Amino acid sequence: MSVTAAKGFTASGIAAGIKESGNPDLALVVNTGPRPAAAGVFTSNRVKAAPVLWSEQVVRGGRVSAVILNSGGANACTGPAGFQDTHATAEKTAEVLGHNAGEIAVASTGLIGVRLPMDKLLPGIDQAAAQLSAHGGEKAAIAIKTTDTVHKTAVVEGDGWVVGGMAKGAGMLAPGLATMLVVLTTDADLEAGPLDAALREATRLTFDRVDSDGCMSTNDTVLLLASGASGITPGQEVFAEAVRAVCADLARQLIGDAEGASKDIRIEVVNAASEDDAVEVGRSIARNNLLKCAIHGEDPNWGRVLSAIGTTKAAFEPDELNVAINGVWVCKKGSVGEDRDLVDMRYREVVITADLAAGSDSAVIWANDLTADYVHENSAYSS
Amino acid sequence: MSVTAAKGFTASGIAAGIKESGNPDLALVVNTGPRPAAAGVFTSNRVKAAPVLWSEQVVRGGRVSAVILNSGGANACTGPAGFQDTHATAEKTAEVLGHNAGEIAVASTGLIGVRLPMDKLLPGIDQAAAQLSAHGGEKAAIAIKTTDTVHKTAVVEGDGWVVGGMAKGAGMLAPGLATMLVVLTTDADLEAGPLDAALREATRLTFDRVDSDGCMSTNDTVLLLASGASGITPGQEVFAEAVRAVCADLARQLIGDAEGASKDIRIEVVNAASEDDAVEVGRSIARNNLLKCAIHGEDPNWGRVLSAIGTTKAAFEPDELNVAINGVWVCKKGSVGEDRDLVDMRYREVVITADLAAGSDSAVIWANDLTADYVHENSAYSS
Repeated sequence: MSVTAAKGFTASGIAAGIKESGNPDLALVVNTGPRPAAAGVFTSNRVKAAPVLWSEQVVRGGRVSAVILNSGGANACTGPAGFQDTHATAEKTAEVLGHNAGEIAVASTGLIGVRLPMDKLLPGIDQAAAQLSAHGGEKAAIAIKTTDTVHKTAVVEGDGWVVGGMAKGAGMLAPGLATMLVVLTTDADLEAGPLDAALREATRLTFDRVDSDGCMSTNDTVLLLASGASGITPGQEVFAEAVRAVCADLARQLIGDAEGASKDIRIEVVNAASEDDAVEVGRSIARNNLLKCAIHGEDPNWGRVLSAIGTTKAAFEPDELNVAINGVWVCKKGSVGEDRDLVDMRYREVVITADLAAGSDSAVIWANDLTADYVHENSAYSS
Repeated sequence: MSVTAAKGFTASGIAAGIKESGNPDLALVVNTGPRPAAAGVFTSNRVKAAPVLWSEQVVRGGRVSAVILNSGGANACTGPAGFQDTHATAEKTAEVLGHNAGEIAVASTGLIGVRLPMDKLLPGIDQAAAQLSAHGGEKAAIAIKTTDTVHKTAVVEGDGWVVGGMAKGAGMLAPGLATMLVVLTTDADLEAGPLDAALREATRLTFDRVDSDGCMSTNDTVLLLASGASGITPGQEVFAEAVRAVCADLARQLIGDAEGASKDIRIEVVNAASEDDAVEVGRSIARNNLLKCAIHGEDPNWGRVLSAIGTTKAAFEPDELNVAINGVWVCKKGSVGEDRDLVDMRYREVVITADLAAGSDSAVIWANDLTADYVHENSAYSS
């Protein structure tokens, strides 16, 4: 149901010819109101793609009438000409829909450093507009895929209102945000302020804690659009919880479809002196290539976990650290614990618990293993 | 010639049976004086192996009479019992050589979280002592290998004095220090202070800038032993330059033999606002898995370089960045530059030049590509 689960939205997804494969590559999501509002969160990478620079400005106004998204090209590191391409894309979308270009968000994903084929993209916008439908959410989700093997959607229902969304992302998955395009929609009747608060909190706890390969994209974009079509204004807490649930669902789907991965690793850091400490330790573990290889080999190599923890500034004493892999405490008080042969690592999900014994805060970071397939997928051709 | 190139040193390397393979696994280096002095630099990982904790104390005294090194086990995360094993190793070495245990440095490398087989190691010390020779440097260098495919030695001759050394390291290679054991020797007549100054400056510019896989060891140890046997006290500058040259040579050999690597990547960051900025950017590029995969695939994917630079706090403007790969400026002013098809990446060494256009400082970081062989070597068995 994706972005059209909520009332007040239409969407479409078509093949404009941007991708040489002929696969769908252009998605359009339109907010039909009656009371449109929006919030957005973007990559923290200082090298930002043209559509990110554009959409940051659009979202600042608190109103997004439509989002036009393309796969097949990131339009990043393309200079002033690339920014002009994004501008032209927004102008064309505005013209076709009868809106102001200043309310059209643009998102792109694909190879960095290549101009978009505007001779294909612009006519594609006419086609996408012609196919807009209140049931088009699925097709839109399919059209934003790059190396994703499946399209990702999620929906949470409130009391008379709905939050739904779609996401793409399979590589360059790391905090700040994970590399992805995400569009969330709701028919709740909310202003930009409450939308922004709910979205920031949700991304901080979900997409920002997905660290598949430590690489941060130039194009990350997460948009939340409200139509007001339900006529209901939910309480902030219940609404924020729904947004968080949709984001968590989509984030889990991203990890589950990460490039070349054979394992999804849930890293739970517990008894930290602060949440920041827990996140720092979780990310250090998540990014340790040697550990990621060991997990791939179903080897409960806890020494690599301790080695990763040791590189952080978090509060802990080395001889108080405890580590469990899939529930077996293989490291106790910084030394050998339970028999590592007791660890069963046959399943796709692997849980690493790092007990810092330094406080009562915690965090969960999701990561993937490192595989020959990941190397192949990212070395055999440009992406 | 290794650690016995300098006068006043003997060494040996033997198979004590610590490694199941039966390969050499125990090395002994003895300073025969007449004026022994020493300095050391150790891992900055907060989870430190027992031999690191021990040797840090020994080096603090400014005198190291001998170094006993084993491969086949890191003796890290082994608790108080593991520390006792290191202590016993130093005691036994001291007893055999007729020295004080407080002057015996110990270094270990291998799997984390496993106790050493002391019933094999201790008798091995007798055997190693019996085979000490002024020509034993080569054998010592061989005995400290783990996944190294070749042993690494280097020698620089001064005016009547010599600096020589041996190194091991192939995985867990990352700053602070790179993962390695290194023993350097000189017959120059110098006190601990000048030795320490020369060693710190040399490691900062060489081993600390080797970042094969972003993983930091629990066992890194670099020792510099002076015998005074040449009777010559060289000027600090010329001596420091010799130490730096030996370290640079060994560091280059470590990168050239890194686990599973098919490319050695020299990352030159130029025109940075500060040396710290240059190092931060170089490390970010060095650790980008997507870029490392691209280099493996001989794909001059400069977008991944910009994406890595963008995650740093270094001073730069995105639209002023220039990137060359093997001398071809594929990215100019943050956008598409020269034709990427001009880049020839057939050779093992690949040079990435990142021009931050923000100042006049620079740094060089060495890294490796990411390959299926690296994944295999680090997932197929515990190491």
